[in-house]
Amino acid sequence: SIDIAGGLRAGARGDLRMRIVVLGADGYLGWPTALHLSARGHDVVAVDSLIRRRWDTECGTDSLVAIASMPERLARWHAVSGRTIDWHEFDLCEAASLEALIGATKPDAVVHFAEQRSAPYSMISPRHGVETQVNNVVGTLNLLYALRDLAPQCHLIKLGTMGEYGTPNIDIEEGFLEVDHNGRHDRMLYPKQPGSVYHLSKVHDSHNLDFGCRIWDLRATDLNQGVVYGITTAETELDPQLTTRFDYDGIWGTVLNRFCVEAAIGEPLSVYGKGGQTRGFLDIRDTVRCIELAALNPPAAGEYRVYNQFTEQFSVLELAEKVAHARAAHGLPTTIRHVENPRREKEEHYYNAKHQHLLDLGLEPHALSDTLLDSVVQVVESNVPRVLRHTVDARVDWRKGGGLYTGEQATAPLATANTR
Amino acid sequence: SIDIAGGLRAGARGDLRMRIVVLGADGYLGWPTALHLSARGHDVVAVDSLIRRRWDTECGTDSLVAIASMPERLARWHAVSGRTIDWHEFDLCEAASLEALIGATKPDAVVHFAEQRSAPYSMISPRHGVETQVNNVVGTLNLLYALRDLAPQCHLIKLGTMGEYGTPNIDIEEGFLEVDHNGRHDRMLYPKQPGSVYHLSKVHDSHNLDFGCRIWDLRATDLNQGVVYGITTAETELDPQLTTRFDYDGIWGTVLNRFCVEAAIGEPLSVYGKGGQTRGFLDIRDTVRCIELAALNPPAAGEYRVYNQFTEQFSVLELAEKVAHARAAHGLPTTIRHVENPRREKEEHYYNAKHQHLLDLGLEPHALSDTLLDSVVQVVESNVPRVLRHTVDARVDWRKGGGLYTGEQATAPLATANTR
Repeated sequence: SIDIAGGLRAGARGDLRMRIVVLGADGYLGWPTALHLSARGHDVVAVDSLIRRRWDTECGTDSLVAIASMPERLARWHAVSGRTIDWHEFDLCEAASLEALIGATKPDAVVHFAEQRSAPYSMISPRHGVETQVNNVVGTLNLLYALRDLAPQCHLIKLGTMGEYGTPNIDIEEGFLEVDHNGRHDRMLYPKQPGSVYHLSKVHDSHNLDFGCRIWDLRATDLNQGVVYGITTAETELDPQLTTRFDYDGIWGTVLNRFCVEAAIGEPLSVYGKGGQTRGFLDIRDTVRCIELAALNPPAAGEYRVYNQFTEQFSVLELAEKVAHARAAHGLPTTIRHVENPRREKEEHYYNAKHQHLLDLGLEPHALSDTLLDSVVQVVESNVPRVLRHTVDARVDWRKGGGLYTGEQATAPLATANTR
Repeated sequence: SIDIAGGLRAGARGDLRMRIVVLGADGYLGWPTALHLSARGHDVVAVDSLIRRRWDTECGTDSLVAIASMPERLARWHAVSGRTIDWHEFDLCEAASLEALIGATKPDAVVHFAEQRSAPYSMISPRHGVETQVNNVVGTLNLLYALRDLAPQCHLIKLGTMGEYGTPNIDIEEGFLEVDHNGRHDRMLYPKQPGSVYHLSKVHDSHNLDFGCRIWDLRATDLNQGVVYGITTAETELDPQLTTRFDYDGIWGTVLNRFCVEAAIGEPLSVYGKGGQTRGFLDIRDTVRCIELAALNPPAAGEYRVYNQFTEQFSVLELAEKVAHARAAHGLPTTIRHVENPRREKEEHYYNAKHQHLLDLGLEPHALSDTLLDSVVQVVESNVPRVLRHTVDARVDWRKGGGLYTGEQATAPLATANTR
């Protein structure tokens, strides 16, 4: 078969061809990951409940670029690559469906993206907070039980978040801390200080994973990922129908994407508060690569492993300035404004997070370059008529909630209403 | 009104009379706590879903001593003390009921016992594990939201467990650890290593509480309680209808209670494995006192406070030997056997847990004495006909689950079947 984006090399080495289940395969990162693993020669089983599309309807939000339905995307991938991705639609909170899949496929690895992943969404109301923690904790618990009972050798690759750590006044290590205390020593889980009800759910997951490894001898890699930017990977670029979603709104959008959209519609870049909030970032092409690197290097039975999955750290204000700089090279003007921070978080703080483990496995990071920013800006510029302008402003207040763009808050989009 | 067991003194000092909601007031500790706070002059609102009684039916277990219904108990308390406890039956997972209560009562403090509190129960099956985490996490989240929105000054007094810490190789501090790392310093949540799916749920709660204080300026005291022993408090002793439940079985019973029942029915005391498992213990009379001490000394707004609530630490084997010694004084023979440990836990380990904060507030601990053991042994001896002998052995395996005493596993009780 063909060589896609340098792929199928793993397939050529039969020993590294694995059966991998990707949970949450309809999402921003789940979809490109499923494609990448398929391109690399692995047998991929994709699972999603499609709830993310329903959450868009609830919130009044939408992807900037139109995305195909899962059946359309999968057929297109088969046509382009000759490779087949097996597809199942169900919710991870349905234990029986999950057990049936795990029992039938006996995967070598499960990649678990299938969680509610927006901090603002979790802060909209008590119902949204409870929904987030139940959805994420129950889905992951169901998975741990299914692996324990049906595929105990399987490697669980779970998406955590750098946001679990918060902003401690000491260096952030990769999951564990060597502690010397009153003349004695232990290696302990790194203390967490998450900043939203969503981030809390990931902390709960991490404790449940650690338990599953300690008590049931499971093997798990927890990928505490930074903020992902970018639109395309080598695989999604092969055909417009393979594109992944691009969120820019105040609920689902991450900061760099939001800045690029604000600039494209002639608005100033809105920096929350002082903009000194420093976080780890990575390119979407590094996300998909990190997942395969983790899969190719499974932990031992009983081992709970944590990698910090990001490549560079920036403050929010630095990011805004990078966007302004990239646009200036094309003669495009950009202004920056500081808006009242709807979140409750430190706006100036120490931040030094380690991220060595994935580099040791061979990750070759894409640094955030003007080239990348240019490509994002171009995609945004060509989709300006699809921007739902009223969804760009963040409205979810960390103390008072609120922030849906539906109902009374909704206004018309810039161009025609977006339908799907 | 009368002086009950040294009570009503607080009521005599009008400034310390508080309105206190006790959630889980039908339980082993919730009921004596409600009585004690009422006796001390506080206005007590008792809430319970009565689910603990239904769990007994499901598990095939029962309290050794018969307990009255909540309406019976409350009427008896009023007759004995002249004091009224307001009573509401609902489940904390029903947010609307909780919001209505908090909004109507605007309590000074809420004491939260209303959780599934058995580690073995949480390990019976995937369903029991998921039920435990959802029940406990959702109930506590609902409470945090209700306080945030309806009673932000209220002091939340939450029952955690010493089991959240596990058995680290360093001293166990009270909730927080001062960390020096790479030349920098921070005060961080003490890292947790819980030993069951139930204990994990309490770790999740602790993170949610910390968040509620940091982000919403709530005030909370997390009482990481040790293993409680004993049957009676000054208030429950006033009338047989005021007695609290006494669990001795392999699902709900704690170790000292189980030993006393094993001895009473002529069985050897069953020590799990080597018996070197060391834990913190306290007398039920100290539990109810600790709750009031916490309530009388609320934290500041935004403060998350953790107290380790136990008074002495023993190994399981030491406890068995204490029971044997107390019985020997009455000429009663006792043997000890080591059984295969159904749990997965360290059987020999370092253990040194701090417990200074409650002593600083004035707690005068009851040490575990032969007198106390004698009183427990006497209560057990007089209730031997009620012992469900087949429920004394622990059957819940930490790896494989199982362990209900109903269905095929059930056998007849020693005497007549217990009905309620």
